[in-house]
This record gives sequence, C-alpha cells and structure tokens, in this order.
Amino acid sequence: MLAYLAGPDVFLPDAPAHAARKSAICAAHGITALPPLNEDVASLAAMGEEEAWRTIFAKDVAMMERADLVIANLTPFRGASADAGTLVELGWFLGRGRPIFGYSNTATPFAARSAALLARMPDPMPGLTVGGFGLPDNLMIPGAVETGGHPILLPEGGRDLPFDSLEVFERCVALAAKALARVA
Amino acid sequence: MLAYLAGPDVFLPDAPAHAARKSAICAAHGITALPPLNEDVASLAAMGEEEAWRTIFAKDVAMMERADLVIANLTPFRGASADAGTLVELGWFLGRGRPIFGYSNTATPFAARSAALLARMPDPMPGLTVGGFGLPDNLMIPGAVETGGHPILLPEGGRDLPFDSLEVFERCVALAAKALARVA
Repeated sequence: MLAYLAGPDVFLPDAPAHAARKSAICAAHGITALPPLNEDVASLAAMGEEEAWRTIFAKDVAMMERADLVIANLTPFRGASADAGTLVELGWFLGRGRPIFGYSNTATPFAARSAALLARMPDPMPGLTVGGFGLPDNLMIPGAVETGGHPILLPEGGRDLPFDSLEVFERCVALAAKALARVA
Repeated sequence: MLAYLAGPDVFLPDAPAHAARKSAICAAHGITALPPLNEDVASLAAMGEEEAWRTIFAKDVAMMERADLVIANLTPFRGASADAGTLVELGWFLGRGRPIFGYSNTATPFAARSAALLARMPDPMPGLTVGGFGLPDNLMIPGAVETGGHPILLPEGGRDLPFDSLEVFERCVALAAKALARVA
C-alpha cells in the first residue's frame, strides 16, 4: 500500500530527515510512504527556475499516480487554510476517487483562524463572507477528507501542537492502515 | 460546453448578481457557465450547520462532474495563495484530466505576497522555505493550469485589479473558448 504524503512538510528546514521519520511511522503500520521531496530531483540546483518547477510538478504528479491513497497534512500554512499545493493534491485524489486521510496540528477552528488573519490583513474589499460551519477549514477540505470515511484528525484536548509534530500524523497513519485493512 | 466557475466569487456580498455577470460573459463566448452558488440550495437557511456544509459540498462536486472544463479565479484570498476551496476543485479537474483555465486579478508575484504576509503573520517556526520560482502562486497551481495549454492569465501592465474585476476573467473565457474550438 503506497501512501502519498502531501503537506507543507517539504518546506521544513530538515525536510528529508522529517520525511524519513514519517516514512518510518508508515512502515510500522505496513504502509509504504511516498514523500514528495524536492531533494529527490538530484540536478535541481543546476536548473533554471522554469525547468526546476516544471520538473518538481511532473515528479509530484507521477508520484500521486503511483499512490494508492493520500495522507495529507492540513495544518494551516501562510493563511487561514491548509497549504496551497497540498490542497491541489487533495483535490487530485478526490477527482480520482482514491482514499483520502487528513490531519492538522492546529485545533483552532477555521472561523477563529480567519478572524485572526483578518485582524492583521483585512480583505481587499468589505463584505466578503465564508461560512465557518464549525469546521477545521473551508468546507471543500473536510468534504474531500470525509470521502475516505473519517473526519480530519485534530490534536487531542483542543490545543495546537508544534507545526512539525508527528503525534496526529501517527494517529492518522494508524487509522488509514486499519481502514484499508478492513477494505482489503 | 459547460464550464465550472471556481473561485472566491461565492463569498462576494452580491454573489448571485456577480455570477450572473460571469455567466453572461461565458454565454457571449458560447460557453454555459456553472457557478457554484450557495444560494442554489433553497433550504440552506433551514438546515443545521453540518447538513448545510455537506449539502453544499455534494452540490459542488455534482456540478464539477457535469462540467467539461473549469475556469478558476485564482486571485489570492486570505493568505499568500488562492482560495482553499478553489484549489481543491482545481486539483479535482487535474485528477480528471479535464481542461483547466485560470486567472488572477493580482499581478504581484507569489514570493512578494508571501514576504508581505510573513511580515504581518510570521511562520510558526523559523526556516520554512517555499521556492517562488518567479511564479504567481505555489508551483502546483500554475502546473495544474498549464495542463490546459496556457499559463495563469494576469492583469496587463503588472498592476493589481480590484478583487471583483471581470477584466482578466473575460480574457480567460475568450481564451478557453478559442482553445476548445480548436480541439473540437
């Protein structure tokens, strides 16, 4: 079982080591991790900007094609919502109808995060509204994740965890392994 | 030809009237617009939060299923990147291999927007990096759009347009109509 590990983890300063920790957790649950590391493109530094980003895009899409499921880190990143690239990938798995599992290290609901962001960066025009619905993010995100049969996993006790915590990820991997064993 | 109109336009205070303007522009180019308005769910106000968001999600996915292509408004929304729900939808069309066209009313590059956001809302930990690559957003977004054969359309002259401007949208519709006529 091959799991694409979507998330802003690729932007961590120690991304390859972090991916190795995630892969080890997956392996302990019988899942082979596919972490989309930019470091996998050996010649990236020698490329121009345009060749570099196109190479990364093609590599990531090819990796998604190989994957049986996605485990998405939906921790908010540089805005009220989850990381932009992660969301495109989440939609890709939704479009393909492949199993989706997701988690976040932030317990703060979407509506509260949006309000905090707006206090620092007001909208470009007044009157823009987004329904919070008591959800952890824009409704398309829990909607996509719940097609996998489970809600977005959140930190226990309602407290935000460090951005790079693997606590909720580990619960998510265990959930995915159990859910897919049931199907198989 | 049915075009799903993804975008944060649904959050505008006059969303139904704005969608009607977009639909008229599409019609003038021989395209039938499918704008995912929450107002299309007649009984939304009478529902509890959970039933409401699930109904909207199911309606939007069903609308995407009907669509031949997507025209996505990728103007940044509440963060460095495009609207979260729009990005899930963009990924859905990428996963399905259906034609994607996208535009933004913001000419400011992603790297500059990210820096502006970080000045007001620092990252939760130091050292997080995202390559700008001179692109208008996270590389997964132009990557997805360019599968449609064209880059993300931007305002001419390098100046940001109002959030609800339809100038670049109209160029995008014309481009989609021409591109799809060539295929047909």
